[in-house]
Amino acid sequence: MTIDGHTKLLGIAGHPIAQVLTPTVLTGLFRHNLINALCVPFHVEPKDFSALLAGVKHMHSLVGVIATVPHKQAAAALADVQLPRARQARAANVLRREADGRWTADMLDGVGFTNALAAEGHTVKGKRALVAGAGGVATAICFALAAAGAAEVALFDVDPARAEDLAARIRADGGNARVAANDPTGYGLVVNATPLGMAPDDPMSMDPARIDAGAVVADVVAKPPVTKFLQAAAARGCPIMPGAKMTQHQMAAMAEFYGFAGDFSPAALRAIGLA
Amino acid sequence: MTIDGHTKLLGIAGHPIAQVLTPTVLTGLFRHNLINALCVPFHVEPKDFSALLAGVKHMHSLVGVIATVPHKQAAAALADVQLPRARQARAANVLRREADGRWTADMLDGVGFTNALAAEGHTVKGKRALVAGAGGVATAICFALAAAGAAEVALFDVDPARAEDLAARIRADGGNARVAANDPTGYGLVVNATPLGMAPDDPMSMDPARIDAGAVVADVVAKPPVTKFLQAAAARGCPIMPGAKMTQHQMAAMAEFYGFAGDFSPAALRAIGLA
Repeated sequence: MTIDGHTKLLGIAGHPIAQVLTPTVLTGLFRHNLINALCVPFHVEPKDFSALLAGVKHMHSLVGVIATVPHKQAAAALADVQLPRARQARAANVLRREADGRWTADMLDGVGFTNALAAEGHTVKGKRALVAGAGGVATAICFALAAAGAAEVALFDVDPARAEDLAARIRADGGNARVAANDPTGYGLVVNATPLGMAPDDPMSMDPARIDAGAVVADVVAKPPVTKFLQAAAARGCPIMPGAKMTQHQMAAMAEFYGFAGDFSPAALRAIGLA
Repeated sequence: MTIDGHTKLLGIAGHPIAQVLTPTVLTGLFRHNLINALCVPFHVEPKDFSALLAGVKHMHSLVGVIATVPHKQAAAALADVQLPRARQARAANVLRREADGRWTADMLDGVGFTNALAAEGHTVKGKRALVAGAGGVATAICFALAAAGAAEVALFDVDPARAEDLAARIRADGGNARVAANDPTGYGLVVNATPLGMAPDDPMSMDPARIDAGAVVADVVAKPPVTKFLQAAAARGCPIMPGAKMTQHQMAAMAEFYGFAGDFSPAALRAIGLA
């Protein structure tokens, strides 16, 4: 790996930061593509995120800042330019430093999800989708499913008002969305976009026994790699998509957003032993 | 090399930045010592240096900022705490980020020089030293020579007022300093601390034919590795010390300042092929 006076930086801002995998993954992909750039941890607390951005916008060697928990909403709010997906989600996971120091924000969580579905051979267009959750990741996924042509995006959340608000925002944006019961029967695409499944004794967000045969079932939880919910769906013969796919398929979207040419696909990740 | 969520950063701020060697050298030494840290370029213009520091002081993953041209004076001025060498030189080349976000400044250019002399077996204590130059690097070296016990620090500069000012500051600090003519006769240690010698047709800061036999002759210019001035001194049989030694012997002082344990000596640099 090269580190010299020409090296470009892509920071990832989070709090905590020790758990993030992106520095390893993106730096590995930069190296794979012979790009002199590093993805490095910017550990910053929520109260200081705005001040950090105000400082590092002056850094010519900085390509941008990836925003992870809990900075995604602030990243969108603080950006000078919000691209449509960040405006829709009211959150951004990528900020690009323009040459004049302004920040352009986008939200790539959703496109990572729909790109992963497409790569796995699953169509979204025309399908009825049910999404559990209305938080940050769920919001990005619901908008992305609507943008990918889902016939309907049905969603539910432990907070009904949050679910209603999200559905209304998707409709206002031209999508077909509504709040639904936590019953997967009748849907061609079923998504757990809640954190349920990370802990061993978590309940499931819905009853997998009620999923239609042949429905595609996805989970955003990446640890464990295959959740109990996905195990139950697979046992019923449903094609499943684990949470790691969403992250893996987001790398190419990030590279494109930041203007890096090269192979940032899951195949490249496999080539460097990171998928 | 490891890059993950635990990786610590040490930025180097300069303008321009492409020429700096420190990211390669220090990152190589971190790796050699199995330390999960990187030295990375922070390219920032003088007008924005203060704003950059105000932002990155919030970054818990940042160990500090190395300041190179043209930021050394500002680095000292903007620090919350100036250690004695930075206060003396009115310049700092290292800023440490304390846990509360405050900046502690030190100036290690001079100690890099005197450490290099000591490592080469040359004593400073009791010697009469002549230094050409009164700029940033010369200032750090003159103070360091006084601190190392030079019997006298004589200096001259193209700007006589700057030379007088520096000599007066060293005397005010308890050192024995005066402005002298550019004649090396009678000195046991002779230093070119001007940029003269970088360009092929540069004149020399003083006449090497007038250097005492047996005087130690040093140059701060690192490109070319052995300047014409040093070549002339070597031809007279004088022991010489090229400019690169000063930088190489500063790495251990930097590691100590930033609290990194390990081998940051020139021997470690040779072990990784960087000296």
